[in-house]
Amino acid sequence: MKLSIRSQLAYTCPEGPCTFVFNLESAHLGAQTIEHESLTLSPDLECDHYQETGLGNRYTRCHLPNGDDLTVQYEACLTVSHLSGLVADIGETSPDCLPLSVLPFTYPSRYCQSDRLMRMAHSEFGYLQPGFQRVLAICNWISTRVEYLSGTTDSETSAYDTATERQGVCRDFAHLGIALCRALGIPARFVSVYALALPTQDFHAIFEAYLDGRWWLFDPTRLVPLDAVVRIGTGRDAADVAFATFWGMTELTEQIISVQRLDGDASDWDGSPVSQVSAP
Amino acid sequence: MKLSIRSQLAYTCPEGPCTFVFNLESAHLGAQTIEHESLTLSPDLECDHYQETGLGNRYTRCHLPNGDDLTVQYEACLTVSHLSGLVADIGETSPDCLPLSVLPFTYPSRYCQSDRLMRMAHSEFGYLQPGFQRVLAICNWISTRVEYLSGTTDSETSAYDTATERQGVCRDFAHLGIALCRALGIPARFVSVYALALPTQDFHAIFEAYLDGRWWLFDPTRLVPLDAVVRIGTGRDAADVAFATFWGMTELTEQIISVQRLDGDASDWDGSPVSQVSAP
Amino acid sequence: MKLSIRSQLAYTCPEGPCTFVFNLESAHLGAQTIEHESLTLSPDLECDHYQETGLGNRYTRCHLPNGDDLTVQYEACLTVSHLSGLVADIGETSPDCLPLSVLPFTYPSRYCQSDRLMRMAHSEFGYLQPGFQRVLAICNWISTRVEYLSGTTDSETSAYDTATERQGVCRDFAHLGIALCRALGIPARFVSVYALALPTQDFHAIFEAYLDGRWWLFDPTRLVPLDAVVRIGTGRDAADVAFATFWGMTELTEQIISVQRLDGDASDWDGSPVSQVSAP
Amino acid sequence: MKLSIRSQLAYTCPEGPCTFVFNLESAHLGAQTIEHESLTLSPDLECDHYQETGLGNRYTRCHLPNGDDLTVQYEACLTVSHLSGLVADIGETSPDCLPLSVLPFTYPSRYCQSDRLMRMAHSEFGYLQPGFQRVLAICNWISTRVEYLSGTTDSETSAYDTATERQGVCRDFAHLGIALCRALGIPARFVSVYALALPTQDFHAIFEAYLDGRWWLFDPTRLVPLDAVVRIGTGRDAADVAFATFWGMTELTEQIISVQRLDGDASDWDGSPVSQVSAP
Repeated sequence: MKLSIRSQLAYTCPEGPCTFVFNLESAHLGAQTIEHESLTLSPDLECDHYQETGLGNRYTRCHLPNGDDLTVQYEACLTVSHLSGLVADIGETSPDCLPLSVLPFTYPSRYCQSDRLMRMAHSEFGYLQPGFQRVLAICNWISTRVEYLSGTTDSETSAYDTATERQGVCRDFAHLGIALCRALGIPARFVSVYALALPTQDFHAIFEAYLDGRWWLFDPTRLVPLDAVVRIGTGRDAADVAFATFWGMTELTEQIISVQRLDGDASDWDGSPVSQVSAP
Repeated sequence: MKLSIRSQLAYTCPEGPCTFVFNLESAHLGAQTIEHESLTLSPDLECDHYQETGLGNRYTRCHLPNGDDLTVQYEACLTVSHLSGLVADIGETSPDCLPLSVLPFTYPSRYCQSDRLMRMAHSEFGYLQPGFQRVLAICNWISTRVEYLSGTTDSETSAYDTATERQGVCRDFAHLGIALCRALGIPARFVSVYALALPTQDFHAIFEAYLDGRWWLFDPTRLVPLDAVVRIGTGRDAADVAFATFWGMTELTEQIISVQRLDGDASDWDGSPVSQVSAP
Repeated sequence: MKLSIRSQLAYTCPEGPCTFVFNLESAHLGAQTIEHESLTLSPDLECDHYQETGLGNRYTRCHLPNGDDLTVQYEACLTVSHLSGLVADIGETSPDCLPLSVLPFTYPSRYCQSDRLMRMAHSEFGYLQPGFQRVLAICNWISTRVEYLSGTTDSETSAYDTATERQGVCRDFAHLGIALCRALGIPARFVSVYALALPTQDFHAIFEAYLDGRWWLFDPTRLVPLDAVVRIGTGRDAADVAFATFWGMTELTEQIISVQRLDGDASDWDGSPVSQVSAP
Repeated sequence: MKLSIRSQLAYTCPEGPCTFVFNLESAHLGAQTIEHESLTLSPDLECDHYQETGLGNRYTRCHLPNGDDLTVQYEACLTVSHLSGLVADIGETSPDCLPLSVLPFTYPSRYCQSDRLMRMAHSEFGYLQPGFQRVLAICNWISTRVEYLSGTTDSETSAYDTATERQGVCRDFAHLGIALCRALGIPARFVSVYALALPTQDFHAIFEAYLDGRWWLFDPTRLVPLDAVVRIGTGRDAADVAFATFWGMTELTEQIISVQRLDGDASDWDGSPVSQVSAP
């Protein structure tokens, strides 16, 4: 699928210097072929660029020495070729067969306290057949019991809270999905994306579970077609892939996100959670 | 039912003075006719006695001026005449009809954070018919999903924790039951009791919900027949009715509890959660 | 001191019935002589009135059968005769001398988890001379280390959070003061008031500690002169004395609070935390 | 310094298969020259070995197909050449100069919720001169206010808890140190070690802060001389470097740790927290 994306963030820094690290660019992955892209800062500051080996996350750092305004704009046109579909017969990978580099995604993290949700995960999902269907059952549980409500959670909200408070946004849904998977021994990680067809244009968060030797995408919010997302960052949870991290005083004054399909259309998406094979 | 109870607690206070407040005596209530009872302290310290109006809780305070050992023993023989049975057609009392003195039992408390469990309670039980059957559904949920495991929780554990950590003892089961009731607008309170037929002789904790103009007892652990309990204390949660509170350094060195039936037997109890009408 | 107070709350209930319990009226206490007062509801609904024995809290309940608007207005003119002053030589009451009815105010409560702050309280304040000065040290610690910031906390925020998150409003300041006192064995309770000279007219929350046989008021926000407050409610924490509790869907659309001095003026207040003897 | 270390762990797996991942071996780092070492499993299972690039952490995985006992023993003799000393004039690295690979160690993690301790860190340490001395002040604060008490915390305890509960073991001390550093913008990470001169022979946990272009070790427990530790694992917090992770039912039945100096002695350690330059 061919997609065009554009994101623009404007900041004001009323006083003193401010350092920014952005994670806005499409990840460098086999499944995402970037035709052209540009990252533009205004003012035109010098930047450091950094790409995380393996995950393909790209970070850009700039420094505003004096209080000033900053606008960052990212535009790209790219083809994503995620394999898609419901794959019922996919099983879990036993721990003695997991690549050792995947292990960190079984550990608890800041927003995904799988250690504290162990008994809940086993009580709710322990009796189910291991594999793709079990992760889907987790997504269904979240989708049914957690209400999507903007403004009810913040950057401190974690899966442990969402398990009982039952409200939140995409990031909270993804965190709970990840924590429940890890509590069952399934490696899981956080994925920030640009997504086609979001009701309100914004960054989106989904998650990925490691099953049968590959990573598979899941969206417990059921908001987007999973074959029409552009991956930005992959990490243990939202702490790893904030779209912007800063040191100093600043305020976000504007955020514009736009995702458009350049070939065909997205209208064939049927609203059910769709999974897809990610880049190997 | 005629019951004989005996509890004995021994403490050692290695250093300095220590003040104790005990809540060990059978509550003074219409449904509990005390034939004879005795509270004995060794050494034979002077005591203050205090009875809470309305609830009938009885507190005894003593002061050990020097480091010393203390034994307190309570014995009683009494008849309890709780009405018993499953009463399916009992409804909830609407908030405009609740006695205003009952209102505090709808508020969140230390171990029953009903405010934080509001959405979970409504998501799990909101669709059920209000009334006795809904409180029973809460007890069934707890009984099925929370594992009775000694030593996994402590005096800091609250309903908010148990909702996700899914393990605990009678006190944790009762706290979760209370919190879920209050979250649905049903007044609920904590009841400490002596109970016949506990697998291990100990103090026991159950809870009470206010339905259709009366308080009804529930035991989400399903461990005891509810027509064979002797009520000690009633409060918002365990913070109100600790069997012993102390100021100073002390250690519990022995605890013996014994409850026996003096008429008939308890063998007709069928193991399902039984409710009973408490004293008006 | 002679004060005139007025509070007006307007609600809209878009759908269905709603039951309200208000705790807006001046408490019935010896130190508060009410010259005249009125509580007016519009529409003119029938009300239940309830006064809590001992504490003097007054509750008013009304029921709106259909979706409608509701305005409640309370006006009073009264003389408060709180004893005031810094009283450095007041000691703490040892637990064997506390009235047993005061004991519940040493227990942890929903927003004042003194059991979890025990070691922090002893680490920070354990070495200080017991008594009035130690409670003042607690207030100073809070005033120095916690920032008064509207909108950073909500009705779920408790003393345990504020101890580390270090921000909040009067209610959070009071909860932390209460929790730290209780952790040291000092009975403490929450007091909601109308207060003269608040920077922004609003309800205010302070707390009371039991020292040397009486209750003493403290305000860790240092915002108001303690001899110019009108007590509304006294309880374990904010859960007990919400100015409005409701069942049903409603929204507060307007809140007006006004407190004025009818004799002399408040300009002699020097900004330091002032304590006062409350009604016996 | 030349050290000899030995660790032996014995497990029993009463039922079914169990997979283990051990992180017991000395990290592969420039500052640690391993003269000889051996990792022995009994029974002699086949193992996977994995070394994390950059950090030098070494992981060994084995799989016990049937319920059985397992003993793992690691022995090594090595020379550690950590630079040591108090270095008062070391400053912090400004965020625009931090290597981008160091950034993840400024993010909050499972046990180090720096985001929730931001205001506390600034209130207690914000006014201090940035740099080595400020991290030392954090260690002193922890050492003074948190009591070292075995058995009071468990694998769920995090820095947020320790900040108020004020008790714990080396791992809790390290987590709090890390969280407070990160809250001030100082990258910090968890280091598991074998340490000379621990009062009770055990694994030990310390932490590392990034200052002036290098990582520096700190031990808020003040239990060990920092130039006499052998680094095992480095990670965001304890979740990354558990000495043993397992899937299946098992129980640790024996743990023996021994660290000995082969040249000179450790008696010249003066008990104050000592910092050292780690491998570049």
